[in-house]
Amino acid sequence: MMPKRYNLEWSVGYTSDPSVSPSKTVPASVPGAVQLDWARAEGWPHFWQDGDVGRYAWMEKVYWVYSATVPKVALEEGKRLFFVSGGVDYRFLVRLGGKTLHAQEGMFSKVELDFSHAAGDGQLLEVIVFPIPDSGLGEGRIEASSSVKPAVSYGWDFHPRLVPSGIWRETFLELREDTHIKELNFDYVVEEGLALLRLDLSVELSRAAKGLLEWSLVDPQGAVVDGESIHLDEQSMVDGFCEVHDPELWWPRGYGEQSLYSLTVSVHGENGDLLDACSHTIGFRTVRLVMNHGAWEDTTEMPKSRNVAPMTLELNGRRVFVKGSNWVAPDVFPGVAGEDAYRPLLEQAASCHFNLLRCWGGAAVGKPSFFELCDRLGLMVWQDFPLACNCYSDRPEFLDVLGEESESIIRQLKGHPSVVIWCGGNELYNSWSGMTDQSKAIRLLNKKCLEIDPDTPFLPTSPIMGAGHGGYLFRDASGKECFEVFQRARNSAYVEFGVPGPASVEKLRSLLPEDELFPPRPGGAWELRHGFGAWDVCPESWLCLEVIEHYFGRSESIEELVQWGQLLQSEGLKGLFEEARRQKPYCSMAVNWCFNEPWPAAANNSLISWPCEAKPALRGVKQSCRTTLASARVKRFAWRSGELFEAELWMLHDGLDSVKGDRVEAYLRFEDEESFVLGWYFDALEEDENRVGPVLRFQVPEMEAQTFRLILRVEGRPDWNSEYEFCCLQD
Amino acid sequence: MMPKRYNLEWSVGYTSDPSVSPSKTVPASVPGAVQLDWARAEGWPHFWQDGDVGRYAWMEKVYWVYSATVPKVALEEGKRLFFVSGGVDYRFLVRLGGKTLHAQEGMFSKVELDFSHAAGDGQLLEVIVFPIPDSGLGEGRIEASSSVKPAVSYGWDFHPRLVPSGIWRETFLELREDTHIKELNFDYVVEEGLALLRLDLSVELSRAAKGLLEWSLVDPQGAVVDGESIHLDEQSMVDGFCEVHDPELWWPRGYGEQSLYSLTVSVHGENGDLLDACSHTIGFRTVRLVMNHGAWEDTTEMPKSRNVAPMTLELNGRRVFVKGSNWVAPDVFPGVAGEDAYRPLLEQAASCHFNLLRCWGGAAVGKPSFFELCDRLGLMVWQDFPLACNCYSDRPEFLDVLGEESESIIRQLKGHPSVVIWCGGNELYNSWSGMTDQSKAIRLLNKKCLEIDPDTPFLPTSPIMGAGHGGYLFRDASGKECFEVFQRARNSAYVEFGVPGPASVEKLRSLLPEDELFPPRPGGAWELRHGFGAWDVCPESWLCLEVIEHYFGRSESIEELVQWGQLLQSEGLKGLFEEARRQKPYCSMAVNWCFNEPWPAAANNSLISWPCEAKPALRGVKQSCRTTLASARVKRFAWRSGELFEAELWMLHDGLDSVKGDRVEAYLRFEDEESFVLGWYFDALEEDENRVGPVLRFQVPEMEAQTFRLILRVEGRPDWNSEYEFCCLQD
Repeated sequence: MMPKRYNLEWSVGYTSDPSVSPSKTVPASVPGAVQLDWARAEGWPHFWQDGDVGRYAWMEKVYWVYSATVPKVALEEGKRLFFVSGGVDYRFLVRLGGKTLHAQEGMFSKVELDFSHAAGDGQLLEVIVFPIPDSGLGEGRIEASSSVKPAVSYGWDFHPRLVPSGIWRETFLELREDTHIKELNFDYVVEEGLALLRLDLSVELSRAAKGLLEWSLVDPQGAVVDGESIHLDEQSMVDGFCEVHDPELWWPRGYGEQSLYSLTVSVHGENGDLLDACSHTIGFRTVRLVMNHGAWEDTTEMPKSRNVAPMTLELNGRRVFVKGSNWVAPDVFPGVAGEDAYRPLLEQAASCHFNLLRCWGGAAVGKPSFFELCDRLGLMVWQDFPLACNCYSDRPEFLDVLGEESESIIRQLKGHPSVVIWCGGNELYNSWSGMTDQSKAIRLLNKKCLEIDPDTPFLPTSPIMGAGHGGYLFRDASGKECFEVFQRARNSAYVEFGVPGPASVEKLRSLLPEDELFPPRPGGAWELRHGFGAWDVCPESWLCLEVIEHYFGRSESIEELVQWGQLLQSEGLKGLFEEARRQKPYCSMAVNWCFNEPWPAAANNSLISWPCEAKPALRGVKQSCRTTLASARVKRFAWRSGELFEAELWMLHDGLDSVKGDRVEAYLRFEDEESFVLGWYFDALEEDENRVGPVLRFQVPEMEAQTFRLILRVEGRPDWNSEYEFCCLQD
Repeated sequence: MMPKRYNLEWSVGYTSDPSVSPSKTVPASVPGAVQLDWARAEGWPHFWQDGDVGRYAWMEKVYWVYSATVPKVALEEGKRLFFVSGGVDYRFLVRLGGKTLHAQEGMFSKVELDFSHAAGDGQLLEVIVFPIPDSGLGEGRIEASSSVKPAVSYGWDFHPRLVPSGIWRETFLELREDTHIKELNFDYVVEEGLALLRLDLSVELSRAAKGLLEWSLVDPQGAVVDGESIHLDEQSMVDGFCEVHDPELWWPRGYGEQSLYSLTVSVHGENGDLLDACSHTIGFRTVRLVMNHGAWEDTTEMPKSRNVAPMTLELNGRRVFVKGSNWVAPDVFPGVAGEDAYRPLLEQAASCHFNLLRCWGGAAVGKPSFFELCDRLGLMVWQDFPLACNCYSDRPEFLDVLGEESESIIRQLKGHPSVVIWCGGNELYNSWSGMTDQSKAIRLLNKKCLEIDPDTPFLPTSPIMGAGHGGYLFRDASGKECFEVFQRARNSAYVEFGVPGPASVEKLRSLLPEDELFPPRPGGAWELRHGFGAWDVCPESWLCLEVIEHYFGRSESIEELVQWGQLLQSEGLKGLFEEARRQKPYCSMAVNWCFNEPWPAAANNSLISWPCEAKPALRGVKQSCRTTLASARVKRFAWRSGELFEAELWMLHDGLDSVKGDRVEAYLRFEDEESFVLGWYFDALEEDENRVGPVLRFQVPEMEAQTFRLILRVEGRPDWNSEYEFCCLQD
């Protein structure tokens, strides 16, 4: 008999004393969150709609009690009943018939409890969730500094303070054979110039058993490559090994196929009955972080410090230029986000030529379907552990939880070929966090990764030495534009950089009361939706009204304002992505901040408005991340008539192919008039090779329009054409 | 009965095939090295005397077989006979009666073999040492890149190529009771504002036993603080715990007492007989690496990288400014260096106000007496693991050895309060080594330290981000003096910096043939003794004849040359130590390269000539490292008459005391004439406070002499006076 699942009918209520039952309960959606259950029962509008997150505040301070009745399960001899939960957020107890069977702190470690001897039909099963963790050190993200609870929930520049609680992963009872598969582990290496795969697997059974264990490795075409039938002679551990010559490797998109094998295991009893089976999709690749080109040659004067840290991803022996984005939570409540939310977002990411997402450490680690989709789409994943912008504790109690949670995370994600970087967390070695290489939390994470997944690179945090985070503005308080910031920078990797842009007019109308919509002002709905005062460094964030007005004057309507704001985001990000690419190979990554958002913001650095509405900037980024394109390096965005406009022409080219030489024609379009300025014949580009070309110069004419365009056309390759828009500053 | 030792009479011979016995054997000194045994038997002069290291080359390629006869040992019932070796260098087998009982790679892991059932009187005991490890990747230190063999032996700028082999630590047979102490482990924390010591200990016995185990903690005055008598009831593991209120803490010299407790354990049989006992000296302190003052405030422009790494040692909650030196091997053969060699060297280090020695990773880790002396002298130890200037392998075979060796090293040194920093090795993250944060060897060392000694800081290598190594010259090829190099630098710590100086005339006469002594020239004995072409970056190293001639012209005699060369070293190091101190608190360490040397060099950066002869620079460093002194910051060494000499006056002050204000008087002495230039009243200095004073200016007169002096006198505190010598450049 294969395992059989029993779903439970849950209800939930709260109490200030966990020994006293809730006075009222409401139906609970599992997986989900207590806040959503309660709001539904109360008939409140969804919080994203009315923005009233304040009324959830009291929910942080109470105990939430989930309850369900154990259903009728015929527990014959040789069968066992398990309680299984993928995760409960955050500290909790499991009680059965009033007796506590399990206590846990941490939302990422699975729970499996053998209920066989304790559970009877009709018994009360309870999951008691404690008040949210609070370090007691202050308000905001610092509350999360002694827990492995995602810090973003405590409030961020794009996230309201709304801290989820409750059962957030699939949770059920399962009837199993006494003999079942407890764990399937595997390790592999790809050796001999990628020509040989050596795979070790080990299966742990629930008990020493007699019978038969079969395993097989199935290739991407469905053919069995290798496998064994092993007679069990009172064993609980079974090891297997196979070698595959010329394995089909997994490649990130743009570099090859996303080949996926599957590893299946089944256990049969002595009479031949199938007792249990499991299957694991697995992709094979090598991955390393290697020194950036030219970084060993960086010479410093005496006294010499160390060289910068390596930041170039090498997959299957090939250096990959990373183009990607920061993935933040797709929802305030990770429990409601699943494959349906992930898929359209990840398809958008893939469509704009990204090959990596950095899963930012402020948020929860995604569910399995996230990584399965990334495997299939060829999107590499940089996975931060869920630590961000805090000085996480060295206390043993915290380190114990971090050790268990990190181990669970690593084991769950290991084997997904897409997961290419482990990272301790976000911005931990910066002054606003205060952690250092001496912090035990980071040393512990390094140790766990080395023990469990030693061949996947580990970074202690981001940024590390040589890499950069920021800026996040089109134009900073000193008047410096993002173009200048990046053109002066020399970093091994740009792991966060952003330009904010407003949501669409339609989205804004859905978020903001009619009387607050235009003109935007601080306070009220705009501020609640992160349009003003979102980021403490910049009071204007994220609408940046003054910046828009600096270039285009006061807008007459919300439509006009949004148009200009979105133009700045799009042109800014094009300039930054392309500049990072021009700095290749010293630079190895361009990963913007950020891809998505957890609830609808009026303005934000994201390319996508919640839940999955692309801003125009996504189209701009898509242009700039094509494998091959004509590109222009322009010092600034705003020009006055009479000035000499300058643009340095480039061909940008990534990936393994070489391309033939061709001719780039540059045109400037002022109002309706397009002028041919320059033609440039470029020679063939080798794999991964950029080419710098001539600098065009053109005197900006008098004009009425507020913008003009630079258009680059490649003869016969319109898919390499590019277009840029600039501001013509009016006096 | 307490354990009883039997020393062995060893002889040694070589063979090209380990299955064939040596055709000739010679008496062997244990501990020692095969090279020394063979040379003694052959009647060769000591290699340091004739410098002929070439004739040892063949010894690297053969197998060395130590043999001894097992003595008559009455092995009564309930007794066991053990073979014990503190260490064999490097890969070896132990054979008894022709049968291999043990194979090991690595010189730092102790060997303990139970011979009880195998050994009979008169049996042949053999230790077969393999040819020296060789990575096969090239010649020189790179040969050591896949082993945990100290790299310095393969040749360095101050070390001949001469690679030790053999039994280098105490080795004997020991008769023990069946029930004896196998291991004593302990961990402690000092809590509650240093007011409470919590000590956990665990004793592992050789077998489950009945009887009595007693342990006690004895304070520095010899009084028993706590202890227990535990009845053994067939136990092999015994745990103990005690709390000590207001423990006497161990402090580095200059900051307090070096209080040492002792932990003693004894085991008695059921009849009350003493079976075994051991005792461990232990000091209690807290130690952390904390962020340097001002380093969190270092702001960078966007994009922001991480902040620098912390490099300030904090002992028992107090920040300590580190003044120290790099300890390299006291002998080419670590087997012959012991307490007799360590003591005078360490006393010299203590006498010049050093509080830390960095035990450099090119050399072997010292023997226990080294750390015992450091504990008693209050000299903190920064212990590099024995890796240096190589790209150490990621291969599992190497990592297995490194894991075992590092674990042995950590366990042997843990509990020595002097050991305050673990470091992965020397200059591993620099271009000439090529390792990075991704290197598994470093990740493994970090893991081992975290597991075994989590409260002692771990550095992956040195230098790390923010800290500096170098320079190593008084005046570099571009004409820049060491003063300028340091005055322009801004580092969190100076972990290596050096100025070379020649050995004494007497020492040179003992090393160099009369006909080569003067004038010095490249090739021959001067070059063999590191006087020319020692460091590949600088063909003049380490005599730096051209630099001496630049300032003082051609010397007429070896005496004159040595005088000038030693003056440059002394004045250079004074300038560098004092400049590093002036940069406090942003700078936290001044650790010069290097303290000692493994054999006599004609010229070297060391303060000491082998074996323990202080160069004049040691006196200079002693002046500059006093807790309190008047100090002068001068831009350069050489002045011409008519120029305006400038010196910025400072009071430098370290440590926990405050001192009263006083008056500094500055004098310049040109030939016999001393001129009062300036008086400066400085206010009281708080603990650890420096004070900058006025800049004196004085026109350099015409003179005949080649040097002049600046003298600083503090009224009533002649112990704070300082003196500097400068060059008067002749046209």
